Amino acid sequence: MSVRETLAGSPDVRRTNLAVLLRHLHLDGPMRRAELTDRLGLTRSTVADLVGELARLGAVEQLVADNRAGHTGRGRPSPVVRPCALGTQVLAGEVQVDQVEVALVGLGGTVLRRDRRPLPDRAPTTAAELVTTIATELAAKAPGRVLGLGVAVPGVTRDADGNVRFAPNLGWRDVTFGRLLESRMPGAHVQVVNDADAGALAEHLRGVARGCGDVVFVEGDVGIGSGVIIGGQPLVGAGGYAGELGHMVVVGREGQRCRCGSVGCWETEIGRQAVARALGLRADVPRNSLVEALHAIGPDGPRLLSQVARHLGSGLANVVNIFNPGLIVLGGLLREVYPLVSSEVRHSMFAGALAAPAEQVRLALPELGDDAVLFGAAETVWRRALIDPAGALAA
Amino acid sequence: MSVRETLAGSPDVRRTNLAVLLRHLHLDGPMRRAELTDRLGLTRSTVADLVGELARLGAVEQLVADNRAGHTGRGRPSPVVRPCALGTQVLAGEVQVDQVEVALVGLGGTVLRRDRRPLPDRAPTTAAELVTTIATELAAKAPGRVLGLGVAVPGVTRDADGNVRFAPNLGWRDVTFGRLLESRMPGAHVQVVNDADAGALAEHLRGVARGCGDVVFVEGDVGIGSGVIIGGQPLVGAGGYAGELGHMVVVGREGQRCRCGSVGCWETEIGRQAVARALGLRADVPRNSLVEALHAIGPDGPRLLSQVARHLGSGLANVVNIFNPGLIVLGGLLREVYPLVSSEVRHSMFAGALAAPAEQVRLALPELGDDAVLFGAAETVWRRALIDPAGALAA
Repeated sequence: MSVRETLAGSPDVRRTNLAVLLRHLHLDGPMRRAELTDRLGLTRSTVADLVGELARLGAVEQLVADNRAGHTGRGRPSPVVRPCALGTQVLAGEVQVDQVEVALVGLGGTVLRRDRRPLPDRAPTTAAELVTTIATELAAKAPGRVLGLGVAVPGVTRDADGNVRFAPNLGWRDVTFGRLLESRMPGAHVQVVNDADAGALAEHLRGVARGCGDVVFVEGDVGIGSGVIIGGQPLVGAGGYAGELGHMVVVGREGQRCRCGSVGCWETEIGRQAVARALGLRADVPRNSLVEALHAIGPDGPRLLSQVARHLGSGLANVVNIFNPGLIVLGGLLREVYPLVSSEVRHSMFAGALAAPAEQVRLALPELGDDAVLFGAAETVWRRALIDPAGALAA
Repeated sequence: MSVRETLAGSPDVRRTNLAVLLRHLHLDGPMRRAELTDRLGLTRSTVADLVGELARLGAVEQLVADNRAGHTGRGRPSPVVRPCALGTQVLAGEVQVDQVEVALVGLGGTVLRRDRRPLPDRAPTTAAELVTTIATELAAKAPGRVLGLGVAVPGVTRDADGNVRFAPNLGWRDVTFGRLLESRMPGAHVQVVNDADAGALAEHLRGVARGCGDVVFVEGDVGIGSGVIIGGQPLVGAGGYAGELGHMVVVGREGQRCRCGSVGCWETEIGRQAVARALGLRADVPRNSLVEALHAIGPDGPRLLSQVARHLGSGLANVVNIFNPGLIVLGGLLREVYPLVSSEVRHSMFAGALAAPAEQVRLALPELGDDAVLFGAAETVWRRALIDPAGALAA
């Protein structure tokens, strides 16, 4: 009997085992109980017992196999265990500059319902009102218990209390957004998260960066958001503000003035306005029109975008030297820009990066598309249930 | 009986408790057994038993109190437990551009002996030969068992095998330095570590950054080394190369060409050569002469050093935006430069940093002085003993 088995009866270890089991199912979807037994390295009877507890909590359901594929050689075939999307849900919201979206997401990451509405103005109370109105409507139709509401915001957020310190594109400064949401949904468990951190988390858990421990996610729009995963954990910093890569100075005094007050920040050189200028469009061109212009670009794309590509590459060189990531994911507008100038970007990145970390980095596009941020916001709420399923899911 | 007590008898938990106990003594020095009981939250008899095992391993000794100060109210006074520097030692080395130093360091961090010799040339075999010659001499005089040799090098190192990928100031590229050391000390446990990472680790464990989980250590010399601690753990990256902050581009194309091949790297703007140029000295002035010149600087110091101060501050702004550290430690030559231009540096840092993380950062000078790197190299060898004392220290 292994040490792990010896300990399996103690409350702490049982909680950990339950959490690990649920995490496998939540992230990897339905699988046979025999597969879970292999993954956890516990005995079949222990796993059957743990699965039974999760089933009683409404978190999973067991389906008896209807064919022989799962037959392990003797006895009955191993049942399939699947996360129960209808049993437990979370609400996930995303505030953008001109719209708000909220989704009802079941355990396992299934989106059950979603609703998107235009934001009439950018006042914090307007955004909070719209998010909670949709959330309340979705919660009323939820088939199971709703664990809480996670909302992603394009700004510098403080994990502890959901304050938004600075969201330049919304014009917010020191907004107690978490409290505005809570006051409109009394008793709900509310999380506010930076949009790029949410996107990074989702791509790490469910997208292109699965299984990669050191990932930097760079999301381009008017500003450059970024989320950093180090050794499998989000980079947080002393107050939850770490990872503001958009405000790295990459150009110095020859650069543009940034809304943050500095000059030559990365986001002024590769953000939406820089891309628009490069194509001869107005700096305030709507995002959709800019994306269309990028899709329609002809063979002179690399020439038009050469300066953006150079600055994108030199900022990535910094990222490589600083974090030695295994993967950099280029999202948002960069997902459109990068394929047009990938060789120029890579040339500039390799010119500026040290050889050793540069050899180890891959550049990739996100897999989850526009849903990454919403999925990540959902995961911030699931986190609690995935640490202590019995505590979080007990009626 | 707490869950922890229930588990205290299992081998895994006992190993963890032994390790935690030894770590308190190694880092915080002698203390009464009653204090250890408080810190670990275990019963007196469990702690007495664990201390007994460490004593049998030669790791600690117990001194019966000779006064009543430690009397806990009833029964005998609690004995003082202290790490036994004479029982177990490690060898710690530092390779610099022009010299090599090796120390014999006892458990608890006491330097028992040390020796420093000039490096006749910069060939990797010369450095390996000199380090291992001194190390072998010191080991022969060691009063206890020697656990291994940790050597800090001013270059990009790979943790796994001690390879030095790039050490520009030594002129090394892809040097199998770990193997060169091992071949000269057969059977010894050898660790090679980046010098700034070692310094950061030492200041975090024993110096100015004690108790601070998010710390960036910036060490200025010809190059700029840096070590980053995130949530109490060293930033490593996918291959052990993370944290090369000296090669952040902070100036853009108006900057100096760097030995790494890029232009406008932080280290070309604030390193030894930039400081020398600012004072009107030759770029290759010896370090000691440069430090003397800085000490002798008059009221025009801020004017002479204004550009260095500005670039130091704007690089620090990047560091603040990227890591949101609670503390930045300025070591090496920056320890001399910063106090002369602290207001200019801070002005430039606050101009470039976002307000939220900037409010949370403190700038500090190292406490351990020139010994930080050597102490950190020692800690890389102690690490093994501090994870599993019984396994590492059993005869």
